[in-house]
Amino acid sequence: MIRLYDLAGHEDARRFSPFCWRVRLALASKGLAVETVPWRFTESEMIAHSGGARVPVIEDHNRIVADSWAIFDYLDQTYPQAPLFRSERERAQALFFKYWVENEIHPQIAPVIMTDLFARIHPKDREYFRSSREARFGMTLEAFAENAEGALARLQKALEPVRLALGEHFFLTGSQPGVPDYLLFGAFQWARCVSPRPLLGSGDPIVAWRERMLDAHGGVGREGLSEDLAPLPN
Amino acid sequence: MIRLYDLAGHEDARRFSPFCWRVRLALASKGLAVETVPWRFTESEMIAHSGGARVPVIEDHNRIVADSWAIFDYLDQTYPQAPLFRSERERAQALFFKYWVENEIHPQIAPVIMTDLFARIHPKDREYFRSSREARFGMTLEAFAENAEGALARLQKALEPVRLALGEHFFLTGSQPGVPDYLLFGAFQWARCVSPRPLLGSGDPIVAWRERMLDAHGGVGREGLSEDLAPLPN
Repeated sequence: MIRLYDLAGHEDARRFSPFCWRVRLALASKGLAVETVPWRFTESEMIAHSGGARVPVIEDHNRIVADSWAIFDYLDQTYPQAPLFRSERERAQALFFKYWVENEIHPQIAPVIMTDLFARIHPKDREYFRSSREARFGMTLEAFAENAEGALARLQKALEPVRLALGEHFFLTGSQPGVPDYLLFGAFQWARCVSPRPLLGSGDPIVAWRERMLDAHGGVGREGLSEDLAPLPN
Repeated sequence: MIRLYDLAGHEDARRFSPFCWRVRLALASKGLAVETVPWRFTESEMIAHSGGARVPVIEDHNRIVADSWAIFDYLDQTYPQAPLFRSERERAQALFFKYWVENEIHPQIAPVIMTDLFARIHPKDREYFRSSREARFGMTLEAFAENAEGALARLQKALEPVRLALGEHFFLTGSQPGVPDYLLFGAFQWARCVSPRPLLGSGDPIVAWRERMLDAHGGVGREGLSEDLAPLPN
């Protein structure tokens, strides 16, 4: 069985990495069983054999693969069933989409969920998380979180091409979900698993897509939540 | 031979519609010959048989098709060689990309080129163009053009996922150009064919991609320019 080192919060069951969620969906899409190992930011020694200090990392027999994109390629090479990418064209288009999600969507979600996220990470991670993120953002976590309102407005605008595309298809890859769906869904799971704040208006067509994604591939997206988080209104 | 009604400026040879350029590239990718007909904004009667008042419109034997996306589908159905879309996945991903170009790229290029564009459209189109665009923008063309500097900065930021993707492939669809390349290239052709203002810094990897696109499919992208426009520095 494939083992996935999966970022966890205070509770082992709280899994909130957008990058790990991509991999969970990709594994499920191929029908591959996975054993997840809760991992915290400060447990770098636990994944030192991957050559890096970040998750996702998978172990499969004696193979160790880090980085979500490298894991997609490894999975397609090793388990050709239900290909994540059926052609170079599909893969290259999804690569643009990956960078779009990371450049345009993640940075708008981060300020909105930062306060809730910080409250739910493992206590032993707090000092590392605060100092590394404050260096990256160039401000305190509290000042960063004050950008939430503007970020939420920019998120709505940035998502407009998704809304328009979903006006014609159930998923970003057509009638069935594919890698671009996993990439964007990972971003929403990051928020969903730490924060009760809604990112979308109740009439937004992306809400219905997110529900379809929660149901996809055996409902794997509904896992990873702990119980003290109030249900999301949408 | 397929006939394409193609937006022209003061000179018949100046072709500057981003939507028509997409179609030119798609036709060339399939090796289909085309006769282009210069068309101006105020010549709606000339394309009334399409059911609309906008180009691109193609005539192929007795078939008339309007709208660039509908034309792509028509071409793949009628001329299956060198498919624009080889799968539902490719097509759905390209549809997202189309909306991304139209929502994030076109609006940033428009203020930068507006003054030059207005100077190069056909004199008989000026009154229509000014009144329709000023109603759409909610301001005069001159006030709109004053947003150029901010728009250019937003364009650089919006293009970042393209830059990152092109760090790994020659084209947005991999080793060969495809529909996403045609969609983005159309936006750059819109600028190139009316304005000497550079949109990209000289070291930008997107400059090299644009050169590859100008050379693609027999160099069709190098057509459509009139001679009074100073060569672009990049």
